[in-house]
Amino acid sequence: MRVEDLDTPTVVVDIARVERNLKRWQDYCDRHGIRNRPHIKTHKVPELAHRQVALGAVGIACQKLGEAEVMADAGIEDILIPYNLLGHAKLDRARALARRVKLTVACDSTVVADGLAEAFAAEGERLAVMVEVDSGMRRCGVGTAEEAAELAVHVAAKKSLRFAGFLTYPAPRGTAQVQEVMSAAKELLAGRGIETPAVSGGGTPDMWRAHEAPVVTEYRVGTYIYYDRMQVAAGAASYEDCALTIRTTVVSRPGSDRAVLDAGSKTLTSDIGSLDGHGYIVEYPEARITKLSEEHAQVDLSACAAKPAVGEQVTVIPNHCCVVSNLFDSVAVARDGRIVGRFPIAARGLVR
Amino acid sequence: MRVEDLDTPTVVVDIARVERNLKRWQDYCDRHGIRNRPHIKTHKVPELAHRQVALGAVGIACQKLGEAEVMADAGIEDILIPYNLLGHAKLDRARALARRVKLTVACDSTVVADGLAEAFAAEGERLAVMVEVDSGMRRCGVGTAEEAAELAVHVAAKKSLRFAGFLTYPAPRGTAQVQEVMSAAKELLAGRGIETPAVSGGGTPDMWRAHEAPVVTEYRVGTYIYYDRMQVAAGAASYEDCALTIRTTVVSRPGSDRAVLDAGSKTLTSDIGSLDGHGYIVEYPEARITKLSEEHAQVDLSACAAKPAVGEQVTVIPNHCCVVSNLFDSVAVARDGRIVGRFPIAARGLVR
Repeated sequence: MRVEDLDTPTVVVDIARVERNLKRWQDYCDRHGIRNRPHIKTHKVPELAHRQVALGAVGIACQKLGEAEVMADAGIEDILIPYNLLGHAKLDRARALARRVKLTVACDSTVVADGLAEAFAAEGERLAVMVEVDSGMRRCGVGTAEEAAELAVHVAAKKSLRFAGFLTYPAPRGTAQVQEVMSAAKELLAGRGIETPAVSGGGTPDMWRAHEAPVVTEYRVGTYIYYDRMQVAAGAASYEDCALTIRTTVVSRPGSDRAVLDAGSKTLTSDIGSLDGHGYIVEYPEARITKLSEEHAQVDLSACAAKPAVGEQVTVIPNHCCVVSNLFDSVAVARDGRIVGRFPIAARGLVR
Repeated sequence: MRVEDLDTPTVVVDIARVERNLKRWQDYCDRHGIRNRPHIKTHKVPELAHRQVALGAVGIACQKLGEAEVMADAGIEDILIPYNLLGHAKLDRARALARRVKLTVACDSTVVADGLAEAFAAEGERLAVMVEVDSGMRRCGVGTAEEAAELAVHVAAKKSLRFAGFLTYPAPRGTAQVQEVMSAAKELLAGRGIETPAVSGGGTPDMWRAHEAPVVTEYRVGTYIYYDRMQVAAGAASYEDCALTIRTTVVSRPGSDRAVLDAGSKTLTSDIGSLDGHGYIVEYPEARITKLSEEHAQVDLSACAAKPAVGEQVTVIPNHCCVVSNLFDSVAVARDGRIVGRFPIAARGLVR
């Protein structure tokens, strides 16, 4: 069966592109001596996590415990959760997880660090904890190198924790800031007599600049496996690298310059970032997806010379592939346009 | 167990609010002689569809075949799919479905109508087909009353189809336009000697104006079961009516005016419409959810007198509840703050 024989809408992963994307980045990491720790939140597929590790990744990152548990069940042995875990339910799960994989977590406050320390007080092994630092993204993370060093000292003083280094998720074009903030934190901490075993950075948008922040020893990168329209806009990839696409059908042509596709916000999601429109139509690059309803995409064809007919299939590269993976139970896998299997998206729908 | 004992993030449905929302609208429909046909795309829960029917709904609407099949499996007997079905795979499924439920579908082109006619050519019973008309939304639908009547004549002439009426999804504040366009289509068709058995309108935003378009005999309304921030903004409901909420935890307080919640675009979605921010925090109404990452919400607390601490739980009313239901396999059900069960979201993740 070929891709064009699938009913629509359907999500298709081009496995040859995946292989190329994975290899190119691993080669880059090897060349620059960066430890590669891919973030599986993009694909949530154990089979793909194993391919990443087989190629040379030191382990994976998961954004929530549920994802990490699925990956541990599938045999992945080294997992970083760059997230503040809080509350008994999660801490119990973290403890259970740490007994079966090499687990590292993050914290950006003493509240989180103290909760972790208490939860692991009776464990035989210390829990590896990184201190999250805000290098400009303004999401989580302590705000200054001073606070970072202070919290690291706090973590290192806990009997049940092991300070595992600093962690950041950079702002766009934030590589120089990462180098500056993380170096300062490391230096301040060295002044307190504590070594920094690792510095974790990340982000697909600036992945090819990773070597410009040599303080970073380990790099978390998720979207690089599939890429998407946001990453093309960021300059990290080209449309020819985009490995996850959505096959859709033109279900209506309500005007000479308008088409409607059978893929809406429940397929493409409303993630838009700073882009114009809701996806890139490969066969009609001049078309603009102007608006999404839940099961419809409205397309402006006014710039297109040729225009699709009702019933024609087209291929959409989504704005953001990570949130598309999160919607479906499985994806079709294609090689050279031929369907060769399906990947269950085992770690989706796990809420926590 | 009470709602506050749940781990976060978690989606909770307040069943007393659901019951009140369903009843209030059914009472309105009964008072105005409108046939109520709730759209289950909002909840995707068979149990809730049955409650809607038990209260007086004439049947349900589903936005895709997969949803309709789940609802048919669960015993729902009258289903409208207001969507252009195209291609052998879908037409085969529509045929199978029409053998076990009272099925009505829509079309807005002769291509779709002809496909349906051919697919049902050998069936014993005619397929009920409505003609979709654009009354100002500019999504699907023929653009004028003349084209509507023309396509209705085309459908009515098919041996295997039965013209079941006109259908529209209005633009916001489009009630007057619905009345005008649908009346004109009906009149033109009467001039061709064909009666219009039904006119299907819809939309939660303008639901309480439904009686102002008396041409509409049947009303499709989805979000009214839960409501959400968009519907509150549209004036259809108040925050006290919102029955689907997301319990989240403050996982970080990286600055005196900032908080981060453990619910991002993979929980709340990026649907924003014309709203400011990504959800309403019940306990901190002055807070603004300014930005979502996949698993984080960034909150601006600068307008809040009291501010939540790390580890505190808060309740978020999402911008758009329909896309939240689409993300998860089940929801917790609460009554008076006590957890009384879970609803499997049986019709989610069905792609097509």
